[in-house]
Amino acid sequence: MTPQPTPIRRADRARQVADVLRQQIHAGTFDSALPAEAALATEFTVSRNTVRDALALLRDEGLIERAPKVGTHVAQRKYDHGLDSLRGLKETLRGHGEVYNEVRAALRVTPPPAVARRLRLGPGEPAVYIERLRHLDGLPVSLDLTYLAPDIGDAVIERDLESNDIFALIEEIGGGPLGSADLALEAITADPHSAATLQMPEGGALLLLERLTRMEDGRPVDLEYIRLRGDRITMRGSLVRPTDPIDWRLTR
Amino acid sequence: MTPQPTPIRRADRARQVADVLRQQIHAGTFDSALPAEAALATEFTVSRNTVRDALALLRDEGLIERAPKVGTHVAQRKYDHGLDSLRGLKETLRGHGEVYNEVRAALRVTPPPAVARRLRLGPGEPAVYIERLRHLDGLPVSLDLTYLAPDIGDAVIERDLESNDIFALIEEIGGGPLGSADLALEAITADPHSAATLQMPEGGALLLLERLTRMEDGRPVDLEYIRLRGDRITMRGSLVRPTDPIDWRLTR
Repeated sequence: MTPQPTPIRRADRARQVADVLRQQIHAGTFDSALPAEAALATEFTVSRNTVRDALALLRDEGLIERAPKVGTHVAQRKYDHGLDSLRGLKETLRGHGEVYNEVRAALRVTPPPAVARRLRLGPGEPAVYIERLRHLDGLPVSLDLTYLAPDIGDAVIERDLESNDIFALIEEIGGGPLGSADLALEAITADPHSAATLQMPEGGALLLLERLTRMEDGRPVDLEYIRLRGDRITMRGSLVRPTDPIDWRLTR
Repeated sequence: MTPQPTPIRRADRARQVADVLRQQIHAGTFDSALPAEAALATEFTVSRNTVRDALALLRDEGLIERAPKVGTHVAQRKYDHGLDSLRGLKETLRGHGEVYNEVRAALRVTPPPAVARRLRLGPGEPAVYIERLRHLDGLPVSLDLTYLAPDIGDAVIERDLESNDIFALIEEIGGGPLGSADLALEAITADPHSAATLQMPEGGALLLLERLTRMEDGRPVDLEYIRLRGDRITMRGSLVRPTDPIDWRLTR
């Protein structure tokens, strides 16, 4: 063992253990049951109390379940949503899960001025609003609020919204591919009503994705506010170091 | 007004209003004070009760403050962290805020086997562990747990960790740019100890970023678990529609 000059409190240790275990769970390292506390304590060279604290953190996140005699099991595996290219939920999960959309609203609306501006709609021009509760393998995974430019939206709501990504419908209607999207990703606490809708614990964490998508010619057509259950979805991608000159002058 | 055939409940309406307002707050639309309830009700064509519900959602997220007679104000503006290229916090916020790192640990450790495997370390090979609480303009914004390959880590912990991104230090030591990173982004609820450390409300939401960074030659050198305060950071980027053939066969 390497000596540890800096005292690290038990809660800090538990966090360290939990982070590594969380990644192992996502990677499918454990078939269903996690190793026993004693084995984990040895593996992480920490006390069993620290292991218990770490497992409590993961249980509170909804990632594992613990029961006396039964031990510790993976409660639900999370699904990966790609951050590398612009894809809809169904496209991104092709082959990994069945997507079904419960359509809660699909209608023309007078959009709020801030929405109209982002979709470059004129004063008084309508938008099409679609609200869907998306299910993955039978369980709610996201609540999507979508504003579409009216020419595209009018055609989209005539199609099968229960089974398709809106991206695919736009491309079918528009006869060509989408271009790009700007996205903002935040973590927020689920309010009681959103939590009830998504059938998740009140106070659980949500990934809130705001996405403005454009056609290839640059026209914005699709503004979405997507609430993804934090306990069911991980966003994954890769990033490359920028090639522009790096400022080597460090602060000393 | 366009007729609305589908009944939408008030909580749903409040969510719609909150999402648009949230984006306007991030965009700096409101200098500090939000418009009065009556003005917002007109703008969104909803009742004042719905506006109040929407503002309550944003208040619970820590985004706005409300007080009788004083009205509604932006509590804190969020900072953007880039999702388009691999940058450290200080690089990404250059010119937008002052970053200071409180170093909670910086030492050699025997890494857990799962960490050793990801950093391609041999059995018994040490790693360097660094834990920093990062402050932006004097307030905590992230808690970063970092495991470094020992050759690089030994040199990194001799440098000024309080003022620099680890990326910049690695590049200075390695004499060349980093290559790429794999990242996973999740939303989790802050546990009591993490919340206390980050000086945020218990039960608030965190963005958990796990990032494995490689040198240009592909060698993984830096594995990080980063907890970003959900109420202070938004991840932003843009995505391009993939050019590979799209499957046009929709589900009908």
